[in-house]
Amino acid sequence: MRDYVLSVLVENKSGVLARVAGLFSARGFNIRSLTVAETDSPSVSRMSMVVNADERTFEQVKKQLNKLIDVISIQDFTKKDFLDRELLLIKVNFNSQNRSAIIEIVEVLQGKVLHVGSKSICIEIVGDKEKVATSLQLLKPYNLTEVMRTGVVAIGKD
Amino acid sequence: MRDYVLSVLVENKSGVLARVAGLFSARGFNIRSLTVAETDSPSVSRMSMVVNADERTFEQVKKQLNKLIDVISIQDFTKKDFLDRELLLIKVNFNSQNRSAIIEIVEVLQGKVLHVGSKSICIEIVGDKEKVATSLQLLKPYNLTEVMRTGVVAIGKD
Repeated sequence: MRDYVLSVLVENKSGVLARVAGLFSARGFNIRSLTVAETDSPSVSRMSMVVNADERTFEQVKKQLNKLIDVISIQDFTKKDFLDRELLLIKVNFNSQNRSAIIEIVEVLQGKVLHVGSKSICIEIVGDKEKVATSLQLLKPYNLTEVMRTGVVAIGKD
Repeated sequence: MRDYVLSVLVENKSGVLARVAGLFSARGFNIRSLTVAETDSPSVSRMSMVVNADERTFEQVKKQLNKLIDVISIQDFTKKDFLDRELLLIKVNFNSQNRSAIIEIVEVLQGKVLHVGSKSICIEIVGDKEKVATSLQLLKPYNLTEVMRTGVVAIGKD
């Protein structure tokens, strides 16, 4: 079992997401993250997904997706050189004792403080899978009241 | 009609995405963007969505979502003070004539060059709705070969 990263162009029509999601659920495929966003064409949407599966199951996923009439094309990053990134928005409660430590961590992670309130700060962090895991681990000891993740998007290097 | 931003905590079970997507498609609700990602609890996922609707339709969306047994809670950012962010990965083909201009735009946008190839560069840009629109507009005159968007995530300021 490993994570596979896919980018799927689909028709931007009512029901497409339901059909794709239905396919995954009917076959018990495990989606770790999914993003659906606009493209520069109003009639086309892009789905980026991370699927946790063994190789055989993953090949089935692709085959089944390809059969859907709304699917225009599938980009499989598995054997390609690609960059993956995810965006995290995190809200941390702080007090006078731990504020400096939290801000130090944000700096080390090259994160950005988006907002400072009287009791909490909002942080933006962007990174690949490894950096996201490290970020969450470093911030875990603090009082994280909200963690919003976009899920992974990927882009081929060439 | 305007964009409404919602964050929905759901049970991380097979079929939940299909049920939510089915609800939207059956009622003809228009999802502009959707992200589904992990939370720190393995049994819970978070969906962040932007819905384009009039106020009445949007209230219906919330009511219908609340009725789904897999929905744990709904956060509606409409009347709150919130921050929204989206991540873009963009690949631009360049030549010796326009390379400097492209890099200048990336700097103005406080973007990040993630990779430089012989013919193309990959850029990371993070911003709110307005900044995302400006970024795409400024880069549009160039040869954008890929634009990967995560869709919007939001976090309340307090």
